[in-house]
Amino acid sequence: MASLINGISGDFVSIEDRGLAYGDGLFETIAIVNGRAQLLDLHLQRLQQSCLRLAINVDMAALNLDINNILQSAQPEACEVLKIIVTRQSGQRGYGYVAGGANRLLQLSATSVDYKSLQQQGVRLRFCDTQLAINPLLAGMKHLCRLENVLARAEWHDQSIYEGLMLDTQGCVTEGVMSNIFIVKDGMLITPHLDRCGVAGVMREYILSQLAPKLQLAASVDRVLPEHIHNADELFICNSLIGIVPVTTVAAFNKKIGATTRLLQRALHDELYV
Amino acid sequence: MASLINGISGDFVSIEDRGLAYGDGLFETIAIVNGRAQLLDLHLQRLQQSCLRLAINVDMAALNLDINNILQSAQPEACEVLKIIVTRQSGQRGYGYVAGGANRLLQLSATSVDYKSLQQQGVRLRFCDTQLAINPLLAGMKHLCRLENVLARAEWHDQSIYEGLMLDTQGCVTEGVMSNIFIVKDGMLITPHLDRCGVAGVMREYILSQLAPKLQLAASVDRVLPEHIHNADELFICNSLIGIVPVTTVAAFNKKIGATTRLLQRALHDELYV
Repeated sequence: MASLINGISGDFVSIEDRGLAYGDGLFETIAIVNGRAQLLDLHLQRLQQSCLRLAINVDMAALNLDINNILQSAQPEACEVLKIIVTRQSGQRGYGYVAGGANRLLQLSATSVDYKSLQQQGVRLRFCDTQLAINPLLAGMKHLCRLENVLARAEWHDQSIYEGLMLDTQGCVTEGVMSNIFIVKDGMLITPHLDRCGVAGVMREYILSQLAPKLQLAASVDRVLPEHIHNADELFICNSLIGIVPVTTVAAFNKKIGATTRLLQRALHDELYV
Repeated sequence: MASLINGISGDFVSIEDRGLAYGDGLFETIAIVNGRAQLLDLHLQRLQQSCLRLAINVDMAALNLDINNILQSAQPEACEVLKIIVTRQSGQRGYGYVAGGANRLLQLSATSVDYKSLQQQGVRLRFCDTQLAINPLLAGMKHLCRLENVLARAEWHDQSIYEGLMLDTQGCVTEGVMSNIFIVKDGMLITPHLDRCGVAGVMREYILSQLAPKLQLAASVDRVLPEHIHNADELFICNSLIGIVPVTTVAAFNKKIGATTRLLQRALHDELYV
């Protein structure tokens, strides 16, 4: 494991960091394959856009340098996940802040999860009781305020269940605790709107903007209800680390791993080798 | 300034701390007067109850010891605000956690704000555009996920405005960015319900459960709309540091500093010397 704090090797941040004090920051979780950061442009694009929304002035050139440095310094085999946290630095006590720079925290680590076997065999899902609060002002961003996801993930201990689906407080299916969800219905892809809450994942974006068009699959973003999940022909979840993973069971419903999911998996593999 | 991390003098936390990673923790801000922590029992009660709700296992005996130690080690004059952060320690990457202890982060600092003059002269308020998302699961707690408060506080730079009122996403007045609000109407106290969002402040609790009964003032918790603010006879805000502060202007409406607010201020001063 290697870590960089603002370009300097280190593991510790000030207890006055606003990321800790108020969740005043953002993060990215990036897959590293053969020493290369996958979908890096999309990750940095999302980070930059969210920084704009929150008025966090991160030095993107310095961040790019950090990323190069940490990847070069590490052993390729210990180098599978890069986590980047950007915070609005340290500050006086109080919610107000003076315009300034941002802290860049990078951490490179290995993972013990066998993504290949998840992708091959599929996973089981449940519905979570913990709901996502609706606030368009924060929707879509991968900000540091993630207590809802923590509480949702704490709902189950059955290790045969890989992921939980979260509804928003109006009953719409929004996302998995740590992934996005896609429905395949009549050959079309449908994934939930993330304009009221949820994290707009980079893999979701890559599927919508690049993989689906390339494969001439119609894809739409819509309000999704639990019945749409139950009636789906195929279901899959995705994120930057797991890639595209088929869903074989959701609550009491069994799903077949279908041709569209397999087609997308092959296309993703051809493009990214994940 | 003095800081203790799990009882040991220090200013830094691991970048893997879940408080930083996910806002997975709580905080308290406590007024220190003549070396004594004000309303400490209420602060520790709220902290413990919120830890129960989040299943964070904080060692309250160790925390009490930390508080004694940091107060004894400091110069009384540099000793006006004690901030306590409790987090669900460090963890593996990912929202899931293994049951364990908690990190205790204490920080003692001075303040440059002249609370006495605020209490005497009153303050101006505005309405914020940033709304509070509704999630009963998180409501009332002083957890670390406070991006909404950060964004609300960033809305204004006019230093003559001290505080902003926040509505929830259904249009109900909920709280100030860093305080709670009370209305006085026909001699009665009314403060917003905090069962859907907002922070249940310790000073608000002290007023509701102790000061108001002692003064034989009727007090109720209710849904509050902007028109109730406009039609109030008196308005005041409160928190642990500022005590009870009258509101002289809210948006375009001027308010008189009334007898009920002054009565409460005197009673608070007699009880706590704040």
